[in-house]
Amino acid sequence: MNFEHFFPVWDQLNATQKSRIQDSLIERQIKKGTMIHNGSMDCTGLLLVRSGQLRAYIRSDEGREITLYRLFDRDMCLFSASCIMRSIQFDVAIEAEKDTDLWIIPPEVYKTIMEESAAVANYTNELMASRFSDVMWLIEQIMWKSFDKRLAAFLLEEAAIEESSRLHLTHEAIGSHLGNPREVVTRMLRYFQDEGMVKLSRGMIEITNEEKLRQMV
Amino acid sequence: MNFEHFFPVWDQLNATQKSRIQDSLIERQIKKGTMIHNGSMDCTGLLLVRSGQLRAYIRSDEGREITLYRLFDRDMCLFSASCIMRSIQFDVAIEAEKDTDLWIIPPEVYKTIMEESAAVANYTNELMASRFSDVMWLIEQIMWKSFDKRLAAFLLEEAAIEESSRLHLTHEAIGSHLGNPREVVTRMLRYFQDEGMVKLSRGMIEITNEEKLRQMV
Repeated sequence: MNFEHFFPVWDQLNATQKSRIQDSLIERQIKKGTMIHNGSMDCTGLLLVRSGQLRAYIRSDEGREITLYRLFDRDMCLFSASCIMRSIQFDVAIEAEKDTDLWIIPPEVYKTIMEESAAVANYTNELMASRFSDVMWLIEQIMWKSFDKRLAAFLLEEAAIEESSRLHLTHEAIGSHLGNPREVVTRMLRYFQDEGMVKLSRGMIEITNEEKLRQMV
Repeated sequence: MNFEHFFPVWDQLNATQKSRIQDSLIERQIKKGTMIHNGSMDCTGLLLVRSGQLRAYIRSDEGREITLYRLFDRDMCLFSASCIMRSIQFDVAIEAEKDTDLWIIPPEVYKTIMEESAAVANYTNELMASRFSDVMWLIEQIMWKSFDKRLAAFLLEEAAIEESSRLHLTHEAIGSHLGNPREVVTRMLRYFQDEGMVKLSRGMIEITNEEKLRQMV
């Protein structure tokens, strides 16, 4: 499986555009835990995930974090190439949550093609709308949902991604996903444990009553 | 001043596209306080503000609100036409905060032109990126800024928009902008008054020490 099978508008490119991408494409194997893109530091390029898992997040000046969205196989990351649009006035950081194989399209190559191809520009529009929807969902969660519901939803989502009820996650890491201090996470997890929904042990959280957790959400 | 002077990519449309827009364009005068677009209810079309002021916001199931961004003269509203992109999976409500003159471009007309014109598609991309930046700013405010700072910033922004230090705003309305209950707003405003930054009277807030308010932010 090559790049052309992963890039949805490949067939709508002309020969010149295709070769421009092929000649500049960078293939990378990224180790779990690696920071791929660090906010305003650079304009890395567009990332197309072949396999693996990325996390896009923002950080406060004090180092607090909140996860905006995840990227999985076949997902494309636009905001690691924010220099392609002047109206992108914010920074996201991106790290590999699992070992990840990806392609990098250099920003200037993509920008040129997007400017001449309505198909690529519209594909980019859909990409951005999709991330916008993720972020709007996040705002609604932060604004209107209490922390117990958000934490329950997060644990269920993790279990679905990992296809396991045993989650190797520190309370610190959960705090970074949800934008809350570790102590708040620990307190709520202990309450979940008292209620028989999870079992806590060192570096691990086991979901023991998925049904009850689901009712919370 | 006509539509063509307000629509930035007008000169990049061909004759057919121009007449398609001209033939379908709707001009409207909207009274202050009118709800123009109500979330998923409908696909109103793209709104281009000739003069006036619109507010885009979201609402919880319980009726709480938070302002996402404002639209002023020459701004265009995309999310009142969310049916033009399948990846827009969220609803915003839009109301006129002042008497507003605007044009409505029917969604199907805009969609067709966007699909064939890279210029229009890229303009739409910039529009969306711009709103995305507003919303990312909002998330950072909600997540990392305390309410006193957010309220101070809001009062200063209102004073700049109204070009007046006397703001005709109820505590309820401020709560709807910032996503907080009225009581929380009232309590903080009283604290601001005790500190000499504002003077409260019925339906009005007067900024009495702008410098001190600015230092808070």
